[in-house]
Amino acid sequence: MAAEHVEKVFDVLLGRRSVRKFTDQPVGMDDLRRILEAGRWAPSGLNNQPWRFLVVRPGDARQETMAGLTKYGHIVRNAQALVVVLLHKPTMYHEGKDHQAAGACIQNMLLAIHALGLGGVWIGEIINQEKDVLEALHLGSENFRLMAVIALGHPLHPFEARADGSARRPLEELLVEAL
Amino acid sequence: MAAEHVEKVFDVLLGRRSVRKFTDQPVGMDDLRRILEAGRWAPSGLNNQPWRFLVVRPGDARQETMAGLTKYGHIVRNAQALVVVLLHKPTMYHEGKDHQAAGACIQNMLLAIHALGLGGVWIGEIINQEKDVLEALHLGSENFRLMAVIALGHPLHPFEARADGSARRPLEELLVEAL
Repeated sequence: MAAEHVEKVFDVLLGRRSVRKFTDQPVGMDDLRRILEAGRWAPSGLNNQPWRFLVVRPGDARQETMAGLTKYGHIVRNAQALVVVLLHKPTMYHEGKDHQAAGACIQNMLLAIHALGLGGVWIGEIINQEKDVLEALHLGSENFRLMAVIALGHPLHPFEARADGSARRPLEELLVEAL
Repeated sequence: MAAEHVEKVFDVLLGRRSVRKFTDQPVGMDDLRRILEAGRWAPSGLNNQPWRFLVVRPGDARQETMAGLTKYGHIVRNAQALVVVLLHKPTMYHEGKDHQAAGACIQNMLLAIHALGLGGVWIGEIINQEKDVLEALHLGSENFRLMAVIALGHPLHPFEARADGSARRPLEELLVEAL
């Protein structure tokens, strides 16, 4: 890959941030499909691909129901699409590794969202209300585990990587031994 | 981002595959640092950044020790770098979400490896021998959880996305409801 393209990929890997406010411009179906495709190509243990997706869009009464099931309801309510990320229980093989796979899948989708000029946020808090969410979505808890909801849309504010609450620990703090 | 750059990012998101055979060309320190930087910028619940890294390179006796602790020893032995990905127990706040964060972090590193023209593979099987691995690395199990080992290097064979064992389910199978 040409050097300039490598830099663009790193811009996406290092520059993606949570976006929580969206315009009322709809998210196109083509973009939505590309985002899900990115999730589909994530790696998983034994390539079991335990993830499943459910997309909720404006006009679907379940958006408001879900907004009522998280303290981030204002984000869910204003999103132009919600990607509900699930694990398919019969496909799971290892509690920890399947959760890791879900994380890789979600990250691929967040990177795709950012690359497309859209914005999104990984809502994890909502899984504390897993039972109610699954019920609202008419999904049997014998078949599904709720992993996260990705709320997305066109960013309300021009995007800029911020050095605020989304800061990261310096690499040296993360290295158990110096390189 | 210009359309051609968006396409390159998607090439990376959709085109990354596991690479298990490496040349004996070393992985440069600059590349290694960029890969870890990509991991550092992954998202995590409450931005707790529970991940920690330990890098093992050729010449370090622990590479052979670790090779003996997984059935993928031949891959570990021939890698030009191993990134041991850990969770820092005192930083963890939620079993499932911290595992998801580790997955997002690993995926960012795998994408960085691929973007740089290197190849890598996520070895999850080795965590079945977590206790022995932590011991070999002189890491206290009161402080660390083993998440995975990423083995990487320059690909022995020219890279091509394959339609073999790394195939994926069609998107329609992953959608709980049609789009």
